[in-house]
Amino acid sequence: MRVRTGGVTAAKGFEAAGVEAAIKYQNRKDMAVIYSRKPCILAGTFTSNVVKAAPVLWDKKIVEESPFGQAVIVNAGIANACTGKEGYSYCEQTAEAAAGALNVPRDAVLVASTGVIGKQLPMDRIAAGVEKLAKAKADTLDAGTQAAEAIMTTDTHSKQVAVEIDVKGVKVTLGGMSKGSGMIHPNMCTMLAFVTTDAVISKELLTRALKEDVVDTFNMISVDGDTSTNDTLLVMANGMAENEEIKDGTPEYEEFKAALHYINETLAKMMAGDGEGATALLEAKVIGAATREEARILSKSVVCSSLTKAAVYGHDANFGRMICALGYSGVSFDPEKVDLFFESKAGRIQVCKDGIATDYSEEEASRILSEPEVTILADMKMGNETAAAWGCDLTYDYVKINADYRS
Amino acid sequence: MRVRTGGVTAAKGFEAAGVEAAIKYQNRKDMAVIYSRKPCILAGTFTSNVVKAAPVLWDKKIVEESPFGQAVIVNAGIANACTGKEGYSYCEQTAEAAAGALNVPRDAVLVASTGVIGKQLPMDRIAAGVEKLAKAKADTLDAGTQAAEAIMTTDTHSKQVAVEIDVKGVKVTLGGMSKGSGMIHPNMCTMLAFVTTDAVISKELLTRALKEDVVDTFNMISVDGDTSTNDTLLVMANGMAENEEIKDGTPEYEEFKAALHYINETLAKMMAGDGEGATALLEAKVIGAATREEARILSKSVVCSSLTKAAVYGHDANFGRMICALGYSGVSFDPEKVDLFFESKAGRIQVCKDGIATDYSEEEASRILSEPEVTILADMKMGNETAAAWGCDLTYDYVKINADYRS
Repeated sequence: MRVRTGGVTAAKGFEAAGVEAAIKYQNRKDMAVIYSRKPCILAGTFTSNVVKAAPVLWDKKIVEESPFGQAVIVNAGIANACTGKEGYSYCEQTAEAAAGALNVPRDAVLVASTGVIGKQLPMDRIAAGVEKLAKAKADTLDAGTQAAEAIMTTDTHSKQVAVEIDVKGVKVTLGGMSKGSGMIHPNMCTMLAFVTTDAVISKELLTRALKEDVVDTFNMISVDGDTSTNDTLLVMANGMAENEEIKDGTPEYEEFKAALHYINETLAKMMAGDGEGATALLEAKVIGAATREEARILSKSVVCSSLTKAAVYGHDANFGRMICALGYSGVSFDPEKVDLFFESKAGRIQVCKDGIATDYSEEEASRILSEPEVTILADMKMGNETAAAWGCDLTYDYVKINADYRS
Repeated sequence: MRVRTGGVTAAKGFEAAGVEAAIKYQNRKDMAVIYSRKPCILAGTFTSNVVKAAPVLWDKKIVEESPFGQAVIVNAGIANACTGKEGYSYCEQTAEAAAGALNVPRDAVLVASTGVIGKQLPMDRIAAGVEKLAKAKADTLDAGTQAAEAIMTTDTHSKQVAVEIDVKGVKVTLGGMSKGSGMIHPNMCTMLAFVTTDAVISKELLTRALKEDVVDTFNMISVDGDTSTNDTLLVMANGMAENEEIKDGTPEYEEFKAALHYINETLAKMMAGDGEGATALLEAKVIGAATREEARILSKSVVCSSLTKAAVYGHDANFGRMICALGYSGVSFDPEKVDLFFESKAGRIQVCKDGIATDYSEEEASRILSEPEVTILADMKMGNETAAAWGCDLTYDYVKINADYRS
């Protein structure tokens, strides 16, 4: 596996664009397209929220029922959630418009929206945006970047990643982009993330690879504990690498899964680190757990703790809050066995041994917590399972952004 | 039931005091005692956190094994959590000191601590504080107020309440005090709350009344989703009202339960409204739920949502966040049936009907959300069950307080 530049246009046959459509924002790109020259196998996971936005309902149907997908139309600014039948009809109309503009079947068009809940989409501007996107789309890496920028809301930077693998001498590429920094606590997948690949692989195997991987990547990040109505992760595979089909139980499948994992984990961590108002990417690593699932629950409980997040913001080695978060996670363990460490580029320090504070230096601990990437490592001494979860610190800016999000 | 002034010293035979002991804070009261002239029946609920502070372990043992309790020693500043065997021995020593100073059995002394986790108590100062408390204790209402003030940490005001009921012509009094505004998301009970009563009632019935009531009171508040290691709720009944014993299945028991409920709900709401940095008490009321438990889960999900809390702080009628919080609560419902209202002293407004935004006035909604007590009312139209949960808004000050709590 080799990391390379680019995002959704890195793989063969994929085009993209980002344009200004004035959906809610002015003077910035707010609509994007991903288009594949050939029809794609689709896999997807969606929000587990009972309240599902209209585009989620549309995409679930397409992923489950359509043989292929060929384009995704994304808008930022309005989420098209809590919009009833009218909102759903706008998904149909968007797909209809894209089908015409891109010359693909209507049921090969996916849609995704992000932004404020409870407002209807301005359909005339969406339709105009689709026309612009169809004209602007290109297979350059820059076109992928434009798309990644267009789907941002409160993100401070765009997020994309790409890797290459060899499948029996044939180069296969995977690329992805994502957005999201508020309302991030994905349960089935994340806010909006799109992965493209030119691999030849069956829908069944692609779906399985995706579902197995999201539990350790997108489902392990949290910015604020709020699971969005719009969480969507789509993977499109157009087969244009013309590799020998990737089959279950082969080294090639393992390599493909590792590449997909890299894409997913990278995008997930980018989202966590760019959480609303964040100054640091917070990683909670749990080792020595009795089961994998318990390791996941424990690590996620730490990155979700408001008090832990505020302590990280203050560079305050208030480890009791992390022990406390482990304790209310729902997982049973022996508090008198837990070891706790802080790690970052600035070093590593043990703050708690067998459940009791060590005689650590507050100054050094604070220095370690002052880095832009900070790890809290807990050794439960219950078994051999590990997991990691990612979040960010809780800051004044998180409150500021969310106290006047809609203004 | 009549609401009256006072707190833990309102009921007959109870004394209290609050003194300066310099445990961590300087120049403020930081230790309190509640003392009963006669031995008391005890009931208690404690944190469900796997990591239990030493005083929680001590008190659980006393409540379960001792026939009676007669005094509670509380300190603020250091939580005596994650302190191992040494920390537990300080509970024993505190009980020992209080037993001597108050002339009661050691196993009739309960202890409670609140503050920073991971530090050991300064036992010399605790012992000196106990001596001061023993001398200062009095049965006046003011003494109760002193105690309520001494147990505060980041609280902005002390919290107490008292009521009277008639049991076959005999006046029975209940009073209580509590503290806590951070690390509040009680699962078994709240941070620290103490209820005293002069009622004659059996331990079994008192325990049952308490356990039935906490699920609708203390367990329904959340400031930040962090369940403390120290949550403790103690009820002491000394029987000095000399009423005919309150028996199960009688109108007197119903009256007693109503009084206990009033005390618990009042203290719980006081804590929620005084959440760290809060500018508003946030109530989430759910009606029309299929089951009581689902109503509880739904309402609690709304008061726990960071995005909802930030919106309330910004007086922003961003109802999508509340619908979203209902949706990820884990309860199944039909999103296209939900009605949502905002209520406060300033009025009432419907912002969502059958899952879709109404044509409400943003200005009026914002005015309603600007009051110090705000209710979000959701009608699920699934059945007839209701519940309420209480929290507060999320503010800059919450972050400020918790980013440098220990300094």
